[in-house]
Amino acid sequence: MTERIRLGMVGGGRDAFIGGVHRIAARIDDHFELVAGCFSATAEKSRASGADLGLPPDRVYDDFTQMAKREARLKTGVQAVAIVTPNHMHAGPAKEFLKRGIHVICDKPLTATLPEAKKLVKSAGASDALFVLTHNYTGYPMVRQAKAMVADGALGALRVVQVEYAQDWLSEPLEDTGMKQAEWRTDPVRSGAGGATGDIGTHAFNLAGFVSGLRVESLSADVQTFVPGRRVDDNAHVLLRYAGGARGMLWCSQVAPGNENALKLRVFGEKGGLEWRQEDPNYLWWTPLGEPKRLLTRGGAGAGEAAARVSRTPAGHPEGYLEGFATIYAEAAAAILAKEAGETADAAVMYPTVQDGLDGVAFVDACIRSSKSEGRWIALP
Amino acid sequence: MTERIRLGMVGGGRDAFIGGVHRIAARIDDHFELVAGCFSATAEKSRASGADLGLPPDRVYDDFTQMAKREARLKTGVQAVAIVTPNHMHAGPAKEFLKRGIHVICDKPLTATLPEAKKLVKSAGASDALFVLTHNYTGYPMVRQAKAMVADGALGALRVVQVEYAQDWLSEPLEDTGMKQAEWRTDPVRSGAGGATGDIGTHAFNLAGFVSGLRVESLSADVQTFVPGRRVDDNAHVLLRYAGGARGMLWCSQVAPGNENALKLRVFGEKGGLEWRQEDPNYLWWTPLGEPKRLLTRGGAGAGEAAARVSRTPAGHPEGYLEGFATIYAEAAAAILAKEAGETADAAVMYPTVQDGLDGVAFVDACIRSSKSEGRWIALP
Amino acid sequence: MTERIRLGMVGGGRDAFIGGVHRIAARIDDHFELVAGCFSATAEKSRASGADLGLPPDRVYDDFTQMAKREARLKTGVQAVAIVTPNHMHAGPAKEFLKRGIHVICDKPLTATLPEAKKLVKSAGASDALFVLTHNYTGYPMVRQAKAMVADGALGALRVVQVEYAQDWLSEPLEDTGMKQAEWRTDPVRSGAGGATGDIGTHAFNLAGFVSGLRVESLSADVQTFVPGRRVDDNAHVLLRYAGGARGMLWCSQVAPGNENALKLRVFGEKGGLEWRQEDPNYLWWTPLGEPKRLLTRGGAGAGEAAARVSRTPAGHPEGYLEGFATIYAEAAAAILAKEAGETADAAVMYPTVQDGLDGVAFVDACIRSSKSEGRWIALP
Amino acid sequence: MTERIRLGMVGGGRDAFIGGVHRIAARIDDHFELVAGCFSATAEKSRASGADLGLPPDRVYDDFTQMAKREARLKTGVQAVAIVTPNHMHAGPAKEFLKRGIHVICDKPLTATLPEAKKLVKSAGASDALFVLTHNYTGYPMVRQAKAMVADGALGALRVVQVEYAQDWLSEPLEDTGMKQAEWRTDPVRSGAGGATGDIGTHAFNLAGFVSGLRVESLSADVQTFVPGRRVDDNAHVLLRYAGGARGMLWCSQVAPGNENALKLRVFGEKGGLEWRQEDPNYLWWTPLGEPKRLLTRGGAGAGEAAARVSRTPAGHPEGYLEGFATIYAEAAAAILAKEAGETADAAVMYPTVQDGLDGVAFVDACIRSSKSEGRWIALP
Repeated sequence: MTERIRLGMVGGGRDAFIGGVHRIAARIDDHFELVAGCFSATAEKSRASGADLGLPPDRVYDDFTQMAKREARLKTGVQAVAIVTPNHMHAGPAKEFLKRGIHVICDKPLTATLPEAKKLVKSAGASDALFVLTHNYTGYPMVRQAKAMVADGALGALRVVQVEYAQDWLSEPLEDTGMKQAEWRTDPVRSGAGGATGDIGTHAFNLAGFVSGLRVESLSADVQTFVPGRRVDDNAHVLLRYAGGARGMLWCSQVAPGNENALKLRVFGEKGGLEWRQEDPNYLWWTPLGEPKRLLTRGGAGAGEAAARVSRTPAGHPEGYLEGFATIYAEAAAAILAKEAGETADAAVMYPTVQDGLDGVAFVDACIRSSKSEGRWIALP
Repeated sequence: MTERIRLGMVGGGRDAFIGGVHRIAARIDDHFELVAGCFSATAEKSRASGADLGLPPDRVYDDFTQMAKREARLKTGVQAVAIVTPNHMHAGPAKEFLKRGIHVICDKPLTATLPEAKKLVKSAGASDALFVLTHNYTGYPMVRQAKAMVADGALGALRVVQVEYAQDWLSEPLEDTGMKQAEWRTDPVRSGAGGATGDIGTHAFNLAGFVSGLRVESLSADVQTFVPGRRVDDNAHVLLRYAGGARGMLWCSQVAPGNENALKLRVFGEKGGLEWRQEDPNYLWWTPLGEPKRLLTRGGAGAGEAAARVSRTPAGHPEGYLEGFATIYAEAAAAILAKEAGETADAAVMYPTVQDGLDGVAFVDACIRSSKSEGRWIALP
Repeated sequence: MTERIRLGMVGGGRDAFIGGVHRIAARIDDHFELVAGCFSATAEKSRASGADLGLPPDRVYDDFTQMAKREARLKTGVQAVAIVTPNHMHAGPAKEFLKRGIHVICDKPLTATLPEAKKLVKSAGASDALFVLTHNYTGYPMVRQAKAMVADGALGALRVVQVEYAQDWLSEPLEDTGMKQAEWRTDPVRSGAGGATGDIGTHAFNLAGFVSGLRVESLSADVQTFVPGRRVDDNAHVLLRYAGGARGMLWCSQVAPGNENALKLRVFGEKGGLEWRQEDPNYLWWTPLGEPKRLLTRGGAGAGEAAARVSRTPAGHPEGYLEGFATIYAEAAAAILAKEAGETADAAVMYPTVQDGLDGVAFVDACIRSSKSEGRWIALP
Repeated sequence: MTERIRLGMVGGGRDAFIGGVHRIAARIDDHFELVAGCFSATAEKSRASGADLGLPPDRVYDDFTQMAKREARLKTGVQAVAIVTPNHMHAGPAKEFLKRGIHVICDKPLTATLPEAKKLVKSAGASDALFVLTHNYTGYPMVRQAKAMVADGALGALRVVQVEYAQDWLSEPLEDTGMKQAEWRTDPVRSGAGGATGDIGTHAFNLAGFVSGLRVESLSADVQTFVPGRRVDDNAHVLLRYAGGARGMLWCSQVAPGNENALKLRVFGEKGGLEWRQEDPNYLWWTPLGEPKRLLTRGGAGAGEAAARVSRTPAGHPEGYLEGFATIYAEAAAAILAKEAGETADAAVMYPTVQDGLDGVAFVDACIRSSKSEGRWIALP
């Protein structure tokens, strides 16, 4: 065992949701150790959160720039930083750490605006440090399995991609009740112009691309805000045209009662079809054309090396959301260690990049533009 | 028990699929008796089929016009006729029987072309006889249950409708193998310009309208033909805008491996969501917003009168496709008997009409036009 | 098409449940025509029921012996009779028809007592007429598929059989509310000493034997009556030892909330396992050892001739309880027609016999005896 | 945040399965830090494993007694020890640590023999230290939910408990192939007289007791070894009689193809029924008698405080096996911290105890004795 990578965190103080998830994810495979943080823009809150986490006071900061500067100078300063702030606060800290050669593990969507995203891509490109975006659903073993099967040609040429991400938690104007998660996620300043499109649509878009290996050439969207007074979209219907001729549909909604976190992907090709659902992530339905449907299970007879590489337990011992998230951290660790050792990471190591992040922000932008122009097909870069 | 209604049939000879389904459906609830038929355009085949069915030779015809004429004169001639020919052969016989006051039970889609459909609506309007279109999926008890719940306001104002109908049987060019069902269903002359849109898209469109009670104002479509050489579409992605502001998505495909006959409807409103799947038709998933999801079952505690009215067996004794189809026949019988008795049928009696048929053909037409004009939103009449 | 077989019915008047099921089942495949009946021991009720069914008054009887005598003399008298009375009233009419060479299609369990069952086996043996017991669950296509796979050795030598049949409708003392179905089914005089064991345990026992092809050598049971005041059992736990060394478990219960009609069978062998559930009857789960689980579907790629022979619709068009029941009637028709033509029925024709009926009654008897002697293993004949 | 509890480990070296699980489980909620270990009886292997885990060499031991002695003397020696050796090696180390006041977290089953188990109960009773048995399935949130609902009377008086734990990995003589896990688990010396009964039957037995709150008074078992040459059982059918009159069935099998780790519990009472499956652990099916079945989800509207207390993520973000296991560690941590602070742990804190361990070993013993005496009912202590 090599040493654990020293990790800092920006955001993720008390009352935040995703910060805690990142910390567990970083811990599960024991590749990281949280050693510093700037957990809130409010100094007092940042300190309290740092204390909660058992960090020494001198490694808890009120300001991320100050944190980046000092940690970069410390002999045992952070090697990587997790950025888990609201969307509009990703780029600022990311740049500070990137320019000091500190690897960035950043929550999605990449930024709140497209220009910001483009700049961040440049910053990342100019840095030797790695940039890892936590499109965590790509960390699920059976998503890896699906990607490998598509890549291996099991489905033949792809024809149709159906992806959806439905939730119901914003069916009512929860943002008016003081609920923090709802507040910032429906605030165009903090979240970006996209509501459902940004928060969950980007995940669906990324997942479909990850598994299919296909690039969307253009899209046509009908974007809605159903809850009166809401300032961002809460439902979107999107048609996709992929390079090579495949077509797709993407639906994201936060106003679909009966859906908790229902990300679902179906991919159909000339020779077979696959179906995967995030809420039952250890299963992958696979139908070779003309044969009975098979239920592939993580660790089971039909799952291969791509799934096994990122699994921790045998078949029948379900792994979940946190383990999938942990895989992103494990992949980041592998890449960071290779990088620091001046080596090339194993070819199997894969994680979402800043370019994926830009693609996601461009997706949101295109959805909104298409919808405003009566569904005109918008080319994606 | 009243007498059984004397039924004739046009089409449905040897090798046909849907004719046999209509005959079982007509028999299940014992409201009809098959007494005459013109089962094929080929005289010999028609006679052989009639003999198979135990009909006396003088009630088996080579020509539907001749059949309509003679049966109309017979004292115990047919009271109703089932038309189960390929799509382009619906209107011709329908008019012959309608103009002689013989009720028509016609397979869907209504016709192969929109002008034909419009004319048939006029013919039906000019006749005293009833016109029943067999959008059979509306006969399932849990579809009736869903419709009743929506109508009763259980979901509040509707926001989103997701409907899909996926199959995989045309993933390969089956029409080139001599397989009869594939041949005519992919022949634009017999089937109409729509392939998947006409054969199954119309079912999905009708079902969504039936349950939601909403009217589609306009649609935007991306229609594809994936199998090389195929002359009609085999996949379509359609965005829907409903009167009142709800939005929807319709996907129909015959090239989606792993899907046998996967018609699925989800309806989401301000206060709840419903989900129904044709392949598991005795279940209806119902989530009142903020409460646990419930699995309503045909005959079970959560199912009401609308479902019970069209059920034959208690909870846990699954009813299927044939029973759902039989309900269309039972409703037709109730309407015919009321009509012939000069009474108004019970308000609960409902069946798809010639107008539903026109709507379906208009849907296909609009999909194709929209797709040809880069997804322009096309208003539906 | 040959002529339809003339069918009579004993029992099944107004308010009965299973009589209506038998009539639909007899109608679905059009092999039978109901021409006579003795629908109730009450003359007035029998006549009213006959009128409901459109029968001529002279073919409606007050007394089954009188019916048997007269119908046997008529030139176009019944060729077969369906007996759908409560259990204690099966043997009486069966003997009257059997001794006049009229085929009997009898509901299960065979009789209310073991001595009665033994006598009925003799009566059936002494008659040229056929005796068909409606263990209808053996008529489901995927049950036939399962049986064929076991017989073909797909599972290798069988090791474990898990069968259960759970309901919840008798969780409360419904028999005290005047509910007719509950009354007679919990009355030891009419139903027999077994409650759940007789009404549904016999189905489970029969199904397990049908699919596995194995014979139970002995059983050990723990039989309970949970609802206070109930005069028959409402739950039973049974251990089974099969000839050849396989072991099994049978659970039947009518007091298991959340179960409507949950008959489920699992069979495990050296080389694979199968699972089938009555409430989702078009599916059969099949796992070859060391391979992914497959979902075989009626009409789908993995289903063979045994299932296809008794199917009416293509894959994805669900068939249900009534169709499975109809298959028993179709098999009976095939056997009757062969018999009357002096031929041997096709080897594929299969239906439950009077011997299966005796086995079921012996099963109930053994359960009760074992339970009374602290679970002593009781040999089955 | 308080300091992390210093944890040692006995067993769990390279190639072991459950050791790694314990380490992740201990890490997820950050209550423990692994600081010492005796990972193997082979000195070299223990050291290599310790190095893998980044432990300093002086905290890696070749001998557990030596480890207990030294760690007890160290100022920052282990406060708790995880024992993850094969079953016959639980009691030895447990006693060494217990007698030095070091808390024990021990894998199940408690011991390989009943006498050993009884002695260990005494040792634990004589120590001030806590003894936690990792019946990890009791850590799943929806298992906690089920237990709370039963305790709150949601089901009324219980009547029937159906529990099963089926696997297929030992369908063939894997122990003859050199596969380590199969070897020791089928070796009566290391595993105990029970094979499936000990390895998984004890889990099922414990889970049923945990959720139902009922005590088994007696059992009757039929225990089998299907794989030729195997020295322990691989399948068992057990009937249960609970105090108060409820009855149950327990099936455990390691030769049931199609089952990976299929632990399933169903509990039925006068007023409702529950069903939970380990492989889909975020769901709990709940049917109040006479109402539709509900699908309760972890974090969803129907789940209460008992589930929320042991959850880490919101609804729709599946937690799995490792998180359930982590809950046992979190509960242990809470109890240890309370203990060390001289306080009483929160009433909600619960974990399996050494007494549960004894009950499990007694269960195995009773199964074997009952089976050897033709299913005689054996009283449990």
